[in-house]
Amino acid sequence: MAWRYAMMLDPAASDVSPSSFADTFHAVDPTAPSLAVGELSAQRGDGVFESIGVIDGHPQQLEPHLERLAHSAAICDLPEPHLGQWREAVAAASAHCGPGESVIKLILSRGVEQGPSPTAWVTVASAADNSRARAEGVRVVTLDRGIDSGAAARAPWLLLGAKTLSYAVNMAAIREAKRRGADDAVFVTSDGIVLEAPTASVILRIGGTYVTPAPTGAILHGTTQLSAFDWLTAHGHDVEYRDVPVSALRTADAAWLVSSVRLAAPIASVDGAAIAVDAEVTRSLNAYLLTPHD
Amino acid sequence: MAWRYAMMLDPAASDVSPSSFADTFHAVDPTAPSLAVGELSAQRGDGVFESIGVIDGHPQQLEPHLERLAHSAAICDLPEPHLGQWREAVAAASAHCGPGESVIKLILSRGVEQGPSPTAWVTVASAADNSRARAEGVRVVTLDRGIDSGAAARAPWLLLGAKTLSYAVNMAAIREAKRRGADDAVFVTSDGIVLEAPTASVILRIGGTYVTPAPTGAILHGTTQLSAFDWLTAHGHDVEYRDVPVSALRTADAAWLVSSVRLAAPIASVDGAAIAVDAEVTRSLNAYLLTPHD
Repeated sequence: MAWRYAMMLDPAASDVSPSSFADTFHAVDPTAPSLAVGELSAQRGDGVFESIGVIDGHPQQLEPHLERLAHSAAICDLPEPHLGQWREAVAAASAHCGPGESVIKLILSRGVEQGPSPTAWVTVASAADNSRARAEGVRVVTLDRGIDSGAAARAPWLLLGAKTLSYAVNMAAIREAKRRGADDAVFVTSDGIVLEAPTASVILRIGGTYVTPAPTGAILHGTTQLSAFDWLTAHGHDVEYRDVPVSALRTADAAWLVSSVRLAAPIASVDGAAIAVDAEVTRSLNAYLLTPHD
Repeated sequence: MAWRYAMMLDPAASDVSPSSFADTFHAVDPTAPSLAVGELSAQRGDGVFESIGVIDGHPQQLEPHLERLAHSAAICDLPEPHLGQWREAVAAASAHCGPGESVIKLILSRGVEQGPSPTAWVTVASAADNSRARAEGVRVVTLDRGIDSGAAARAPWLLLGAKTLSYAVNMAAIREAKRRGADDAVFVTSDGIVLEAPTASVILRIGGTYVTPAPTGAILHGTTQLSAFDWLTAHGHDVEYRDVPVSALRTADAAWLVSSVRLAAPIASVDGAAIAVDAEVTRSLNAYLLTPHD
């Protein structure tokens, strides 16, 4: 990963409609200081974000990403982002991506402590080389997320359906997975229901049907999972959102972690027990995910 | 609250012992950019912090704060902070506090993405006027933290005992409390055990004994709670750490939220039902907490 570009945004009110937002952006050096020490993003992880995969300068699944940014902002009581402004910012950032795989991050923070308004920025970086995870798969461990499967509905202040900047637990889960000799984690509820990976969605194939945990508030609705379901449906496969017990992950015909940058990584083992990797479907799916599309 | 000072630290290895760390600090404008957009504090809430109350330039409970910073860092697999360096940084920052009440924040971030080392900074601000909360008390609502009382022991990757920068849920809980017409929240487990407030510890008086939930991993060990227990013990009161069911909060003889800056705020009501405020103990305790001490 290497930085390619960064820009600060002056967040627009959601009800304005200028002919261009260009004068609300300014480029910054991604390695130089741009944020004040009182930033609530930095002090409290108080904000929301998106990571968009970019193929040859084309941002994938832009609209689902923008919609999810707005959804996360609403859950967090942040001012409604002006999606026209963000769309234009992504277009400007995309021009700095170059060929191959890149990642554009959108960050919307509550702003500086006692400050008048949110802070927002966009970064562009080249993507890490994920070819090995796509080809060989990832070993995962299941980790208890602490919550039961009713928590999201009962306690919306847990912000479980928002992609917030408070990702310390997600990062800790990946470190725990590595300590256990695995590559990644899959969060499960305390009552044994599969949720999501710290930075990816889970898709399983069970009896010929492709299944993903229903995004009913406890997890994010994965943008790459949406792309994968589009492709699977177009190829005649059955897809379904439903609750998945952890036992079903261990006995799945095949399973994947899917995310915007790593794309589809087949799960090679769960808690040390191998599961089958479907190399053919994985290759075809990733070929689709690596083709520019909306 | 108004900014008074800020400084960046170049974190020292824990095993060095120079005669002074002065050349590892530099003052920055708290309102000007000091952090890069790739800061993992800002992107992922990935780091730890402390907020130290300062009275007339004297940082209260400095050593418990430094010890907790180190404890939080260990839970988060951050490099061990050099407490001698942080102690010296706090001393330098204290010189900018002036008379009255101030707050010094210590922040240790994992650093910039793909960066070589942690980022660290210290801010100094005047404290908000908390006299009303201390005198009149705070109305609290109990909010489900989603986890059961066994989660911390079972799932250390939830980082429940660390004071991390991932505080979006804490901030959301305070917003939810305000939506319900209250001032603050008290987190409880899904099985009905009192935890802590989003930014404070809970102390109750039950049958003449001052009780606080045992900091066994699910909550922070409050530095102001430690001070309060010192004072209570010195005045002949019994103090105890133990599990507190939420029913005991509702029927307590008296209860307080205690924290480094607001100090002791008596709880005036729980979920809309008034509880007794002990104005005399509150006044005496706050007089102690407002006296410079170590």
